[in-house]
Amino acid sequence: MDPAGPEEAVAASAARNRNWGRWGDDDVLGTLNFIDDAKRAHAARLVRRGAAFSLSQRFDMNGPQKGWRRRTNPVHTMLDTGVDAALGNQGFPHGIGGADDVIAMPLQCSTQWDGLGHIFDHGRAWNGRPAEKVVTSEGDQVTGIETAAAAITGRGVLLDVGRALGTDGELPDGFAITTEHLAATIARQGGTARVGRGDIVCVRTGQLTRARRDGWGDYAGGAAPGLSFTTADWLHDTEIAAVATDTWGFEVRPNEFDHAFQPLHQVAIPNIGLFIGEMWDLDALAADCASDGVYEFQLVAAPLPITGAVGSPVNPIALK
Amino acid sequence: MDPAGPEEAVAASAARNRNWGRWGDDDVLGTLNFIDDAKRAHAARLVRRGAAFSLSQRFDMNGPQKGWRRRTNPVHTMLDTGVDAALGNQGFPHGIGGADDVIAMPLQCSTQWDGLGHIFDHGRAWNGRPAEKVVTSEGDQVTGIETAAAAITGRGVLLDVGRALGTDGELPDGFAITTEHLAATIARQGGTARVGRGDIVCVRTGQLTRARRDGWGDYAGGAAPGLSFTTADWLHDTEIAAVATDTWGFEVRPNEFDHAFQPLHQVAIPNIGLFIGEMWDLDALAADCASDGVYEFQLVAAPLPITGAVGSPVNPIALK
Amino acid sequence: MDPAGPEEAVAASAARNRNWGRWGDDDVLGTLNFIDDAKRAHAARLVRRGAAFSLSQRFDMNGPQKGWRRRTNPVHTMLDTGVDAALGNQGFPHGIGGADDVIAMPLQCSTQWDGLGHIFDHGRAWNGRPAEKVVTSEGDQVTGIETAAAAITGRGVLLDVGRALGTDGELPDGFAITTEHLAATIARQGGTARVGRGDIVCVRTGQLTRARRDGWGDYAGGAAPGLSFTTADWLHDTEIAAVATDTWGFEVRPNEFDHAFQPLHQVAIPNIGLFIGEMWDLDALAADCASDGVYEFQLVAAPLPITGAVGSPVNPIALK
Amino acid sequence: MDPAGPEEAVAASAARNRNWGRWGDDDVLGTLNFIDDAKRAHAARLVRRGAAFSLSQRFDMNGPQKGWRRRTNPVHTMLDTGVDAALGNQGFPHGIGGADDVIAMPLQCSTQWDGLGHIFDHGRAWNGRPAEKVVTSEGDQVTGIETAAAAITGRGVLLDVGRALGTDGELPDGFAITTEHLAATIARQGGTARVGRGDIVCVRTGQLTRARRDGWGDYAGGAAPGLSFTTADWLHDTEIAAVATDTWGFEVRPNEFDHAFQPLHQVAIPNIGLFIGEMWDLDALAADCASDGVYEFQLVAAPLPITGAVGSPVNPIALK
Repeated sequence: MDPAGPEEAVAASAARNRNWGRWGDDDVLGTLNFIDDAKRAHAARLVRRGAAFSLSQRFDMNGPQKGWRRRTNPVHTMLDTGVDAALGNQGFPHGIGGADDVIAMPLQCSTQWDGLGHIFDHGRAWNGRPAEKVVTSEGDQVTGIETAAAAITGRGVLLDVGRALGTDGELPDGFAITTEHLAATIARQGGTARVGRGDIVCVRTGQLTRARRDGWGDYAGGAAPGLSFTTADWLHDTEIAAVATDTWGFEVRPNEFDHAFQPLHQVAIPNIGLFIGEMWDLDALAADCASDGVYEFQLVAAPLPITGAVGSPVNPIALK
Repeated sequence: MDPAGPEEAVAASAARNRNWGRWGDDDVLGTLNFIDDAKRAHAARLVRRGAAFSLSQRFDMNGPQKGWRRRTNPVHTMLDTGVDAALGNQGFPHGIGGADDVIAMPLQCSTQWDGLGHIFDHGRAWNGRPAEKVVTSEGDQVTGIETAAAAITGRGVLLDVGRALGTDGELPDGFAITTEHLAATIARQGGTARVGRGDIVCVRTGQLTRARRDGWGDYAGGAAPGLSFTTADWLHDTEIAAVATDTWGFEVRPNEFDHAFQPLHQVAIPNIGLFIGEMWDLDALAADCASDGVYEFQLVAAPLPITGAVGSPVNPIALK
Repeated sequence: MDPAGPEEAVAASAARNRNWGRWGDDDVLGTLNFIDDAKRAHAARLVRRGAAFSLSQRFDMNGPQKGWRRRTNPVHTMLDTGVDAALGNQGFPHGIGGADDVIAMPLQCSTQWDGLGHIFDHGRAWNGRPAEKVVTSEGDQVTGIETAAAAITGRGVLLDVGRALGTDGELPDGFAITTEHLAATIARQGGTARVGRGDIVCVRTGQLTRARRDGWGDYAGGAAPGLSFTTADWLHDTEIAAVATDTWGFEVRPNEFDHAFQPLHQVAIPNIGLFIGEMWDLDALAADCASDGVYEFQLVAAPLPITGAVGSPVNPIALK
Repeated sequence: MDPAGPEEAVAASAARNRNWGRWGDDDVLGTLNFIDDAKRAHAARLVRRGAAFSLSQRFDMNGPQKGWRRRTNPVHTMLDTGVDAALGNQGFPHGIGGADDVIAMPLQCSTQWDGLGHIFDHGRAWNGRPAEKVVTSEGDQVTGIETAAAAITGRGVLLDVGRALGTDGELPDGFAITTEHLAATIARQGGTARVGRGDIVCVRTGQLTRARRDGWGDYAGGAAPGLSFTTADWLHDTEIAAVATDTWGFEVRPNEFDHAFQPLHQVAIPNIGLFIGEMWDLDALAADCASDGVYEFQLVAAPLPITGAVGSPVNPIALK
């Protein structure tokens, strides 16, 4: 991999890993096609104790966003409050009072799925479609996140690379997780950590743990541990359905080329057709997995079906 | 029940069904406490075929809201598009392009959970707390929906009252579903439709089917089929964890008193501590249940953990 | 004018009235260039009594928008309130309390200016620039409304066509105001109503008066009185700086071709370089003008300088 | 003035300067009542050259806000773009294309007016009204900024304290401008700088100049030059209509008491009934005034008439 040649590296990786046409010309689900009824039924059987974990950060103003690309933190405001109700300002009969609220937020502001319309490769969206016919100012006309409303649930696997290979459970910023690191983590975690077709792989780096302790700093877009560009083949060959991390951008930052911007995204989303989860909070789940040695679980990570959205906030639920 | 006396009827029902203190002074989950690990584990075992159903409407401008109480439909706009990417306007290296988006919406605009801070009874919120100390302009300081992030998953039961008792699967607007109607529906649907502690009950009236066919009309706040005020005791005594309907407001409209506004909410939320789902799309699930005769399923209905929110949009996933 | 041939009619009118290059290749102000210091100084001298009129509708949920093209009415919410302050919820010292608020709105939702980036003619923006280089997802890179921040103030002239030619002061929906109608109105109103270089012309149809009385109905996009397509030459030849009406769309609707959409906009904005004001409330000013027979005034109609905006809400102030 | 006693100092100043009842019990305009037709007519006569200055900062993401009290910078997004138009994605006839946009912003995010409902003193709003009856979650029911739609135009006076008393035209952060400083500035600037009844006084500190050069830093809420608490009497006794500065908060910060928050606001808004402008960009106007020695001008600073708003963004226009 030539650090000076992202263009060539991306092209070569995209050519090796491209899934265009694999599920027909009309496909909108990409690698989510690897999840079928049997896998969902199997995933449900992984629930033994009945413990439930939310893998979502809280959505509020105290998030990591700093305004880059107009990405703010969520702004949540009240239309009516208990204070108004208590003072009898609401005009409702028989003592009923109410509170209502509103939110304004970028869909990529916190725990989220990148949809297939989120990234393009030389003007091509997933399945080779022209980007300009897919995502216009009216939104994603083809692969809007609403098409995946029921599709993102199955077997989840946690790869806690931070705990396996890091210091005090955390990888340093700039640490590029390679295929070898993933394999070592799986080996260390044991049989429940095997990864295969249709799985939703959750990679914990520990960066969110650090941000929670030390402050956000440049969590949103700065240096971070993450997947190496070279894992594109692993992401493709394992036939996983989706991947998620506890970082802003899933792949290592700074990126591994001299002048680049999220090159693994460019292979993964429009070429592999892979759904990517970002800013997931894997800490409570990871502590539980470390405790009982079981790294697989049922995962239900349903996006909000916002018509035409290229991503969605999500509250993923892991059940063990 | 005296149609002229909602104040007295609400007070009497609230007194009979009030759960304040049942789970301690600090409780924030209300009837969600009825769901425990055993029930979640049991719910997972209901997944047999691995079929997944989204119970969410799509979130977009073509929704039912008309502006009442400043409730608009969601406004989804793009920060970057494939069109910009195709024309090379984005300034990114090595051929990568991207699309980003933003949403502004009331949290009660479409498929949603009412949180425990959504309704008050004479200035009292859930567990008897003063409304003005719970929901201020900064949001719900105590029972914000984020406290239920991992809590709303368990056994779902569909009561398809529309199909059981309606015409062509639909109840007319103004039809008040009584305890007897619920019992008749359960009896007709058979053993998988029994309702008990910790269940999440989904009541289909067919109104959404009608709105989808005939246009929204006054779906958002107008006449609708729904639960009778008299079902408050059933909602309490069955010890269900939550209830959801395919209508705007869960209870029958016009309300069953001469001058009233959502009196069943006033008993259910602040007094019983019950989570209420509204505007759920139960049609595909209902067709499946009618087909295989199985009315129970695993339900994962995780709210977005918006700090301090009194409700949340949700994409509930039913797995059979 | 062939009703079946809007394409040809627009092309011919655009060719006759095009001002491209008139103020240099870098121009961003279009016809606002007709206003110079002398005209602004003259306009100030029109203020005799010192009476001030706001020509803006109120911005709130009770506006005409119905969601077409995601145009909602403004949503104004509070971040803090007097209710919170009164109950001591705010945590401020020495008895100070505060209220703050937020707004979300389309820039074209109510009384507004159309900027030069609002409309294109066959992919060309004002001055012949390629539309795709001018208005991207990041906004208007060239003619954003902020470039006109100080530029829209000068002599205003009211042409009260509704009062001059209508019934009870109102023109019916579908009434196309022609150059002859404008001339007749000017003649009737007298010397203060003459129109010339650099003037900002306010045309009152009376439709807003009607909407205020009868309800919005289809005010936002439905049938309306307005300028005939044939007035394009008048708009050009008079060398006015801007024009504004009390209607949603400035030109008559239905448009005067069999299949068309706002053809006068297509000539006026990208070709003439004309600023268009819409949904102005001219009623109070018109009553005053009818009363004292003076139809000219100083007008300060400053847009909010939102970087890259293709339009702006405005509160125009007329001083007589 | 005891630095340990803001409570007492505020109470004493409020008692001295309170205008409650001065313009009747129903008054909503406060000190704007000092502007009458004669003053507006006089102001127009101050326009000699016809030069126009916008006193507004640009509204965009690159503003000073950092999220405190959920105050973000404006988020401006496009509903349609020239890029879409160029690629023929819009579906309009005869070659017309269009761009539309949306904004979401706190009303106090940039150049703005504080309305009379913005600040309370011990639960009392302007004119002695109970804060909880004035500003509820539905907005300011009494003194909403829309009531001042036509009212904020008159004679403006620039007091360039930065140039008169600062170094290189700038006062340092923490510099408290006293009545003596104001008098010295007026004396230095000469006869056109006299201040009297009904004037709108613009005080330039130079902090915005510094922020523009050095970056925002803590412009939004941090240390700043500004009016001393002790100027409350001057603000009252001069009978000015309004005051505006180039800083975030108008008064000096840190405030002049050990533990305080904007104590001058507490006297000025609810007690004096004074309109306060903040974050105005006075630099271009100030350069012109320094050049020609004329510090008075016509000022039209019309707020957007947002129903129930406690403030408003504004693009003030000064005409000389």
